[in-house]
Amino acid sequence: MANHSPKPIRCKAAVCRAAGEPLTIEEVVVDPPKAFEIRIKIVCTSLCHSDITFWRGKATFPRILGHEAYGVVESVGEQVEGFAAGDTVVPTFLGQCDRCPGCASEHNNVCTTVPFVFGPGMRRDGTSRFRDAQGNPVHDLVAVSSFSEYTVVDVNQVVKIDPAVPPKLACLLSCGAGTGVGGAWRAAKVEPGSSVVIFGLGSVGLAEIGKLTGGGADYSFECIGVSSVMTDAFNCTRPGKGKTIILGLEKNNDPISLPSLDLLSGKCVMGSFFGGIKPKTDIPILAKKCMNKELELDGLVTHEVGLQEINKAFDLLLQGKSLRCIIWMDKGSGHGR
Amino acid sequence: MANHSPKPIRCKAAVCRAAGEPLTIEEVVVDPPKAFEIRIKIVCTSLCHSDITFWRGKATFPRILGHEAYGVVESVGEQVEGFAAGDTVVPTFLGQCDRCPGCASEHNNVCTTVPFVFGPGMRRDGTSRFRDAQGNPVHDLVAVSSFSEYTVVDVNQVVKIDPAVPPKLACLLSCGAGTGVGGAWRAAKVEPGSSVVIFGLGSVGLAEIGKLTGGGADYSFECIGVSSVMTDAFNCTRPGKGKTIILGLEKNNDPISLPSLDLLSGKCVMGSFFGGIKPKTDIPILAKKCMNKELELDGLVTHEVGLQEINKAFDLLLQGKSLRCIIWMDKGSGHGR
Ligand SMILES: [Zn+2]
Ligand SMILES: [Zn+2]
Ligand SMILES: [Zn+2]
Ligand SMILES: [Zn+2]
Repeated sequence: MANHSPKPIRCKAAVCRAAGEPLTIEEVVVDPPKAFEIRIKIVCTSLCHSDITFWRGKATFPRILGHEAYGVVESVGEQVEGFAAGDTVVPTFLGQCDRCPGCASEHNNVCTTVPFVFGPGMRRDGTSRFRDAQGNPVHDLVAVSSFSEYTVVDVNQVVKIDPAVPPKLACLLSCGAGTGVGGAWRAAKVEPGSSVVIFGLGSVGLAEIGKLTGGGADYSFECIGVSSVMTDAFNCTRPGKGKTIILGLEKNNDPISLPSLDLLSGKCVMGSFFGGIKPKTDIPILAKKCMNKELELDGLVTHEVGLQEINKAFDLLLQGKSLRCIIWMDKGSGHGR
Repeated sequence: MANHSPKPIRCKAAVCRAAGEPLTIEEVVVDPPKAFEIRIKIVCTSLCHSDITFWRGKATFPRILGHEAYGVVESVGEQVEGFAAGDTVVPTFLGQCDRCPGCASEHNNVCTTVPFVFGPGMRRDGTSRFRDAQGNPVHDLVAVSSFSEYTVVDVNQVVKIDPAVPPKLACLLSCGAGTGVGGAWRAAKVEPGSSVVIFGLGSVGLAEIGKLTGGGADYSFECIGVSSVMTDAFNCTRPGKGKTIILGLEKNNDPISLPSLDLLSGKCVMGSFFGGIKPKTDIPILAKKCMNKELELDGLVTHEVGLQEINKAFDLLLQGKSLRCIIWMDKGSGHGR
């Protein structure tokens, strides 16, 4: 069933050549998937605050950013089971093997078989599947790199999605909305009637309902990754039982500082990768809730552009004008959607 | 039933006249209990790390320290219900009214009716029930002040104890052992088979069983109140699900600093006052477990002295030579026990 002899593909990608510089749309070569890998034709991707963090940071360049996306399987590498060309999927930065202690535990969503790393490189061999027109390697981002017409992702990090789910919604669930909804549902286990305060703009925060109460919030969520905002989020929670959930990746890797006495009063701080959700188990559940209108994410999409205009998506987010901007791979290339 | 006209009592107490100085055994006057207050004849008390923190600190002096104790009700003030002279009781630094939102919640043990304060003063009127031989007021500690033959405590902070429970064990449960056992049982909800690491000497830590495992501990407890140790405790827990429980009162009120990235991996830090236990509900349950030998606390008592030797208890704890030193009020005063 699997196609075991895929060839390199030439396609367009948005490449970040230097920290904080506009991305350049370039022709790149995407290698065939190796064993346990899947090559995906990206349909749409969106810009997340974490992309901005890596774009600004001291990361290795050139690099193809992007990690919130939806696409179709183009080809699969050897030993890939359960996926075939044509499957609709979302890639995720967090893997799920379903066999390691992390995946087996109901309290944990950190897979140890193919561990998450912030640095570039596919997770089984540390190399990249991208080269530029000069044949030089281009680094990946969290082994997803969705700002490209094609990308290669580890089978552990690919989630099959019902093709009836609108691509935009599946895309949002693959990181931001999945983290936000998951944070309330899986990590914090927010109870109905609780007061919730959200720190940080963006779809992570807005996927909740926020209500401020006297005496401190029952739950606060920090979504933008700023150490001082994490402390603010902690301070606004209720003594005795307030819970702060850190969902944002700290932009400078600064530590979080908490008043120890307030902590002792019974407050709790937890961090959560991907809101505590297990990607392969929970994204399909959330997608179903979107289809049933139990979960309403459409309002999060404030802008839509084509790949050529990707720097506009950066500007909108940096200026606080957008929540989520969807970047369509075929928009503006003449064949519509 | 209640005796509504108790008189001031002259008795011996260990008074701290200045930060870090040896306590002096003095004759003090203990006022009658006011409304909602109970005067207790202390049988035994023990020295807790938090007493050391207040002894060293910038607190108001002169002050009568001590907050881990066992005694007998001597008299009760007006409007006190459910207690009578002769009842065996333990005083606790944390109150429980059973009517406020904190007491009503199963996730909270911070009573808001008569709120906990670190500063001196009885909690309903802010005044002290102690005077020295010159008639000058002597401050209390957390409205308990058990380093005295008699003390006055708010009815909210008094727990009735089955007289069959050995005084030493009831005394330990009123703070240190209650916090330690409660931390595992109520706050962290430690599951059987979990790996646990305890930071800090003392009965809080030793009431657990510690076992170090590869990959990080499932739970770590910080019991001595040192900010850097809190960070160490956090660092030793397992990525993905490690839980750190802060039980120690930070000696300098320094903030706790946590690596934000490690937190994001799914770790959790929670503080807990009194290990999350509700004193009036849970201390009798723990006392019953002691009687049944389900809970074994005898090993925590390493030394026993009389009130006259209380500075020896300080030396032993400061030198790390004792876990808990029981201070008997009548030991060495000629009538034994
Ligand atoms: Zn993201
Ligand atoms: Zn796994
Ligand atoms: Zn104590
Ligand atoms: Zn209460």
